[in-house]
Amino acid sequence: MPHAARRGRRPGSPDTRAAILTEARALFAANGYAGTSVRAVASAAGVDAALVHHYFGTKDDLFLAALELPIDPRVALAPAIAAGPDGAGERMLRVFLSVWDDPELQLPLLGVFRGVVDPDGQRLLRDGFLPAVLGPVGVALGIDRPEVRMPLLASQVMGLILVRYVLAVEPVASMSADEVVAIYAPTLQRYLTGPLG
Amino acid sequence: MPHAARRGRRPGSPDTRAAILTEARALFAANGYAGTSVRAVASAAGVDAALVHHYFGTKDDLFLAALELPIDPRVALAPAIAAGPDGAGERMLRVFLSVWDDPELQLPLLGVFRGVVDPDGQRLLRDGFLPAVLGPVGVALGIDRPEVRMPLLASQVMGLILVRYVLAVEPVASMSADEVVAIYAPTLQRYLTGPLG
Repeated sequence: MPHAARRGRRPGSPDTRAAILTEARALFAANGYAGTSVRAVASAAGVDAALVHHYFGTKDDLFLAALELPIDPRVALAPAIAAGPDGAGERMLRVFLSVWDDPELQLPLLGVFRGVVDPDGQRLLRDGFLPAVLGPVGVALGIDRPEVRMPLLASQVMGLILVRYVLAVEPVASMSADEVVAIYAPTLQRYLTGPLG
Repeated sequence: MPHAARRGRRPGSPDTRAAILTEARALFAANGYAGTSVRAVASAAGVDAALVHHYFGTKDDLFLAALELPIDPRVALAPAIAAGPDGAGERMLRVFLSVWDDPELQLPLLGVFRGVVDPDGQRLLRDGFLPAVLGPVGVALGIDRPEVRMPLLASQVMGLILVRYVLAVEPVASMSADEVVAIYAPTLQRYLTGPLG
């Protein structure tokens, strides 16, 4: 009786996909990344967990879809990471700048970044983006103490976002990518591989 | 006829002080620091400019009062600046941490910092706090190109605020002041006096 197993469950459809995403956003925001399971999202959306995986892939994929980032940072950063820790600060910064300096990507990214001041947005960033994206980057780079070093990297990158894109403070806002790299890549590289005192 | 000169002007009183502050906040937010004169604030509040100076001092003082900071950063930073550029990164960072690590000061400071995501708050920070506070600090330190270096310092300090206080990302949130200084003081010192590529 296949229908019995689906009792009360909506069939797959574009609306179902949107419903899953809505519930995922609400649950990730309320309970953080670690406190949210694919099963819980599926249950809240009234669908099977398999359907969530079908539409979105892994829990990390679902989380990034819920963040509504215009790019997948894991894909964008992959080549910079694959080349290893030497020079990774500059390579990751160049990827970051190529994304944020693109006006079409910058606008939606600014929207996500503004969420940093409300509690839900904070939880998504702290309990989601850092463990789901930055943590794996640090591990993939093979650096020591990634759990310390990646938040340091994040602190300078987020400060750069604030000054260059959100506040548009001159002369940082108008600097070329090469000028930004000359100033900030040594900082990021030290946080990744240098002595921390 | 002294009353003729005061026609339509409210006399000095606690209400007048509050009215001046309200108008100052609105004008600084709408027109920025440079675009707002003490005369314009006085006119908007229906008082003489002399009364604004009487209550608040200089335009910088009025601006800082409008920001409602729990401390005057110019006073707090004065000893760190007076000792000159060598080691200023660490000295300024220790002042910063002593203020932000104080729970009674941290709460109102977080309120001001959250304004960074709305346009008025952004203008106050970019067109007010930077020229009225950070700019003079750079000049007083006697560093070269303060107009470039102080925004760089601000980018790392604001990123640290985000990670340590707003998002409370571990392990940065729980680090001792000495640990934070060991990690961040070299970055700030390089932005103040080091080569910028």
